Amino acid sequence: MNYRMEISYDGSRYKGWQRLGSSKETVQEKIETVLSLYAEKKVTIDGSGRTDAGVHAKAQVASFSLKRSADPLEIKDYLNRYLPDDIAVDMVVIADEKFHARYNAKSKVYYYQIYNSDVINPFKRKYSLFTNQDLRIDRMEKAAQAFVGEHDFTAFTTAKSKKKSFVRTIDRIDFEINGPEIRIEIEGNGFLHNMVRIIVGTLLEVGLGKMKTADIIKTLKNGDRAGTGPTAPAQGLFLKEVKY
Amino acid sequence: MNYRMEISYDGSRYKGWQRLGSSKETVQEKIETVLSLYAEKKVTIDGSGRTDAGVHAKAQVASFSLKRSADPLEIKDYLNRYLPDDIAVDMVVIADEKFHARYNAKSKVYYYQIYNSDVINPFKRKYSLFTNQDLRIDRMEKAAQAFVGEHDFTAFTTAKSKKKSFVRTIDRIDFEINGPEIRIEIEGNGFLHNMVRIIVGTLLEVGLGKMKTADIIKTLKNGDRAGTGPTAPAQGLFLKEVKY
Repeated sequence: MNYRMEISYDGSRYKGWQRLGSSKETVQEKIETVLSLYAEKKVTIDGSGRTDAGVHAKAQVASFSLKRSADPLEIKDYLNRYLPDDIAVDMVVIADEKFHARYNAKSKVYYYQIYNSDVINPFKRKYSLFTNQDLRIDRMEKAAQAFVGEHDFTAFTTAKSKKKSFVRTIDRIDFEINGPEIRIEIEGNGFLHNMVRIIVGTLLEVGLGKMKTADIIKTLKNGDRAGTGPTAPAQGLFLKEVKY
Repeated sequence: MNYRMEISYDGSRYKGWQRLGSSKETVQEKIETVLSLYAEKKVTIDGSGRTDAGVHAKAQVASFSLKRSADPLEIKDYLNRYLPDDIAVDMVVIADEKFHARYNAKSKVYYYQIYNSDVINPFKRKYSLFTNQDLRIDRMEKAAQAFVGEHDFTAFTTAKSKKKSFVRTIDRIDFEINGPEIRIEIEGNGFLHNMVRIIVGTLLEVGLGKMKTADIIKTLKNGDRAGTGPTAPAQGLFLKEVKY
């Protein structure tokens, strides 16, 4: 029987989603350990994609198969009983036999949170980037539109592979501003390693007046990593949704 | 010169507000250490009251005096530069020479957060009490009104002193419900040790059908600690405001 699960996690203390071997704490490894106890045999799960060390998820999706059929609610309850409380399984359902969380994903939605005020907020510090510098948010919003559409994101990733394509399509980048809180939401058909965080880091440079929209357009064209801003820190990033 | 400051803190890793000696980490000790470095002599601060280990504050108030006069904004910036990022000084102003954060406090507002759902929320777990049991919130709201007014709260505290009065006045207890999030806000002229947490623990018993409003009225009269619910855990409690 094939299953689909939805998971939220506070990534603060994890080395990311993907299993790295038993010595490192990852979200996938935590879930597989408990699921294997439940199934009384080794179970592996396939996530929709990796999230990096320190990155959070509101609704990561994963698929897995069990030889014997089991009640999805029973699986969910078992997982939530034995998982640490920074990982929650919000849904388990029976899926089509062919469903695969990574191969079938059509698009993903991430958001990045910035807290822009003169003083840090102790309750937001683990879930946002704090900056007390003046940000021209209007310029950031305008510049963000340069990323929308199909582009070669070679400059906007730390991925090393030279064989694979760096072309991705970004459907939208939306800003939501709530007092000192800025949320940048970005939807696309796929994201390269560190791509969202480098895009946000670049938009922050625009907000600080150090870069312009023209610089982004140029860097998308020439693929030069030196033309981007720094990689924004992991704790502000959330995987919000995976669409199928 | 006399000063008044407003402080927010994530109490998760502290042994509460009040200085306990250098071996224990408390919020007061952290602030006094940095303020003393600034003033180049030992400075003590007076908080509006203690908060227990693990309790948070959105706007704790403290007062302190400096021999030489200094710019309040400079003090605020200095503190925020050297304090850990789970403590933020949101305001420093020059106060009346007679202002004292504890003696002059007229009332305090606390709130307690409960997350009531079948699955824990990893992002709320450090700032709320999680329960997946069915709560009759309507009954809790109704029972809460039994606490409003002037009562002897002997049963609703773990304070040991027999000399002091246990009579306090609660002005209001309001419920705010937002999906799975329940916020119980309570305002009064003063609170005994653990009083808010025992009131919340008692209201939870009402929500679970284990106690009734009549039990609360009886326990307020007879002062019997055995007639209350358990002390709700610290991580759900916030000091929201101190009124002068």
